Parts: sequence; C-alpha cells; structure tokens
Amino acid sequence: MPNIKLTISYDGTDYLGWQKQKKGKTIQDTLESALSKIFKKPVKVTGSGRTDAGVHALAQVANFTVKPLRIPLAKLPSVINNALPPDIRITGCELVDEDFNARRSAKEKTYLYVISNSVVQSPFSARYAWHVPSPLDIKKMKRAARHLKGRHDFKAFSASDSSTENTIRTIKKITIEKNGTEIFVLITANGFLKQMARNIVGTLVDVGRGKIDPEEIKNILLSRDRKRAGKCAPANGLFLLNVRY
Amino acid sequence: MPNIKLTISYDGTDYLGWQKQKKGKTIQDTLESALSKIFKKPVKVTGSGRTDAGVHALAQVANFTVKPLRIPLAKLPSVINNALPPDIRITGCELVDEDFNARRSAKEKTYLYVISNSVVQSPFSARYAWHVPSPLDIKKMKRAARHLKGRHDFKAFSASDSSTENTIRTIKKITIEKNGTEIFVLITANGFLKQMARNIVGTLVDVGRGKIDPEEIKNILLSRDRKRAGKCAPANGLFLLNVRY
Repeated sequence: MPNIKLTISYDGTDYLGWQKQKKGKTIQDTLESALSKIFKKPVKVTGSGRTDAGVHALAQVANFTVKPLRIPLAKLPSVINNALPPDIRITGCELVDEDFNARRSAKEKTYLYVISNSVVQSPFSARYAWHVPSPLDIKKMKRAARHLKGRHDFKAFSASDSSTENTIRTIKKITIEKNGTEIFVLITANGFLKQMARNIVGTLVDVGRGKIDPEEIKNILLSRDRKRAGKCAPANGLFLLNVRY
Repeated sequence: MPNIKLTISYDGTDYLGWQKQKKGKTIQDTLESALSKIFKKPVKVTGSGRTDAGVHALAQVANFTVKPLRIPLAKLPSVINNALPPDIRITGCELVDEDFNARRSAKEKTYLYVISNSVVQSPFSARYAWHVPSPLDIKKMKRAARHLKGRHDFKAFSASDSSTENTIRTIKKITIEKNGTEIFVLITANGFLKQMARNIVGTLVDVGRGKIDPEEIKNILLSRDRKRAGKCAPANGLFLLNVRY
C-alpha cells in the first residue's frame, strides 16, 4: 500500500491544534476531509505529534496510506492544496517505506518561538509572536538556557495535567538570538512534553525580566515542580520548525 | 484646540477599509470609538485618505482635535493602543499646527504591493501578499513601469465607478524588486485615484505574464479606458507605506 509522507505548513491561529477533537476545527481533520474527498474514501493521517491550539508549523510531518494512489506524486501537493484553506499548505509529498510512521519514526524536533520585544507590537506580528514590551536581558536568558541543554527530567516544564510517565528528554540545542526587536528561541530535542517549549520560553522570559536567576534553572529542573518554573508562553509565538527522521 | 497627528499601522484583513460605513467594521470607526471612550466625548478623525477593504497600512496618518487633552502626549499612544484591538496600532502621536489636516496637507503617498511568486504560497503570507504562481518577467515589468512614471492622465487605471473629475496624477517613483520568491512594487505619487495602485499592479503582472506588451502601457494611458488595463490586483497585497507632508 503506497505510504505518503506529507510536509505541512500552517497558520494555527484559527484552529484548535493538530489533533482531531470532538468539537471544533483542527488541522488533522481539515487535512483528513480534504484527502478523503480527493481519494473518495476515508483517509486517516498520522502526525509527528500534536501541536496545541493556536500553534503554527513551518514543516509539520504526517503520513497516510492509500490504494490506489491514482494521482502522480508530483501533482499531489497542488491537488491537496486546492482542497485545503489557504492557512494550511502542503509543501512536499514523498513516497516512503511501508514502515514509516510520522510519529514513531521521528528522531528529533525543532521548535521556534518568536518574541516581539518592542514597545508597540506591529499588527503584522500580532498573530505570530508573543508581545513582551519590557526590557529583557538576553545574556541572562542565554545563561539560563545553557542549564536546560542535555538530558534532564523536564517534569517541571511539562503541563501539570499531563499524564506522561517518562518525563526525561534530551535538549540537543537551544539558542536565543535577537534581531532588531524580535527574539528567536530555537529548541531542538528528541521529544517534547506537553507545553514544554512554551513553559521553557515563559521561564526564560522571567529570567530576562530579572524575576528568576539564571542559576535557579538547575533547581527548577531538580524540583520536578511545575509551579517553580515560569508561566506558559502564549501559543501564537510557537512554530514547529522541523521534524528529523 | 490641540491638534494631534496620529501614525497608525493596521492589518486590514478583517475591516471594510478605512472610511466609516453605514454597516460593518472599519478602521476609522474603530479608532473613533476608542478615542471617544478615552476623551469621554465624540471625537472625529480625518485620515490622509481612504484605504479599500482588506488593504493594510504601515503608516497611515490621521488627525483629530480635542480639548482638553488631559493625557500627556508621550503616554497617548499606549493609552489609545490599550483601547484598540491588536490589529490596529498607534505608532506615533505628535502635536501639530492647528491648520494641519491629514487629508488636505498630504503632499505624497507611497504604496507597497507584495506579490508572492512561489508555486505554493506560505500560509504566513496568505493575508499579506497576492499569490501569483506563474513565472513573471521582471525585466518586462520594469520596462512597463517606466512608462507610468511622471505626470499622466491615469483614468485607465482608476476604478470605473469613480466619479473623480481630475484624473491627472504624478507618479514620482515606481520600483519593482524581487527578493527570493517575493516581488515588491513601490509606487510614490502626489495622489492616487480609486484602486489606482491595484490596477497598476494587476496590469504589471499581465505584462510579466506576457499578456500585455510593456510598450502598450503608453497606449493604455492615452486610451483613458479602464478596460484596456489589467485586472485589479487583490486588496490583501497592498500596504499604505507612508504619507509625506
């Protein structure tokens, strides 16, 4: 059965996240209805993982199987895009091995978080960045980030309602760059707990504001206590940038 | 009576344009209700000109008079921004001469038009650029633009329902630049007729596609016939960039 890997870019503003819900519009069900219409049979897609309501993606990955494929692979992106709203775009289609599974085969993911650190936020970034008007000490934020790098128990940075048992993850890379009034936080890890990226950014912003000492990060990790870390940064600044297989 | 000049940036996607309408949300009435609430009396604003439904602004200019001002000028932008939705932002406030009128005092305006010339349009530019997937000959477009520069009767590029009698305007500068898959058209003129910028861009794209010869622009201008020019480019790619006084 042909197994197709899709690369998907989406503006998550108007969606309740990736995962299908009982009520409300999600990326997954919008994509599944488009594919089911095209192939005239029910099609299920497997995403690399969930993204929360309002979170965006530059290159989310999903796969689906269908038989017969009927449509030449090269034409598939434009055929699917014609059946999708403009805030979801297929940027690539690939035929992959039968055992490829977008979720289970994922080796690492990279998230980008955008902070708009200007007095007045541009209306053109309001959907795509967290507006933090107060001054932020980037050097301190970078020092704090260094303590997050590596293999740690990230329970303190996981949503308190999460039921995941194994909360150990490895952050392979975490960088903070300032460009004009925009601050970009890039985090690459072998996996992310629920709201982990946003809780890390919320904590780093508290460090930048001087509310948390950079060295305190070590103790927050050891505490495994969600209340010790900073608040969850809003969804609109977060982008799933890349999934590596 | 203090006369205040406002510089305003807005994402026009969800508005019926600048100008107050009998029905529906516009930038002007959203701004006027915010100011009326702040000053606890009806406040009217004068904009540099209308922008059509869906058109954006990086620096629209408007003025209003109010007495007493009560609020220190330096605090005014943040006070007004707190009363506005995030898709409209005040980026500057200035005290100006009593005879300053944002519309009548305007000497020239610059519009930016963004074309997304990629096979698949990014969902993040869908609100802010016209998607033209077909190849465009930029050199031909530049040659065509040269014929538009200067003082001409732009009736052929004015909305057919416009009642403006004097259709002579001077384009002081018109440039076309390609950066990656994005094409930027910048037009500076002493004034713009209704839909003039969008009709020019629609015509330039027809030139780029090879449907209109660059030299034909001279004849289109002379014809004064709207039907001879290209179609009106969509509103979402247009930004009022600057108003000079």
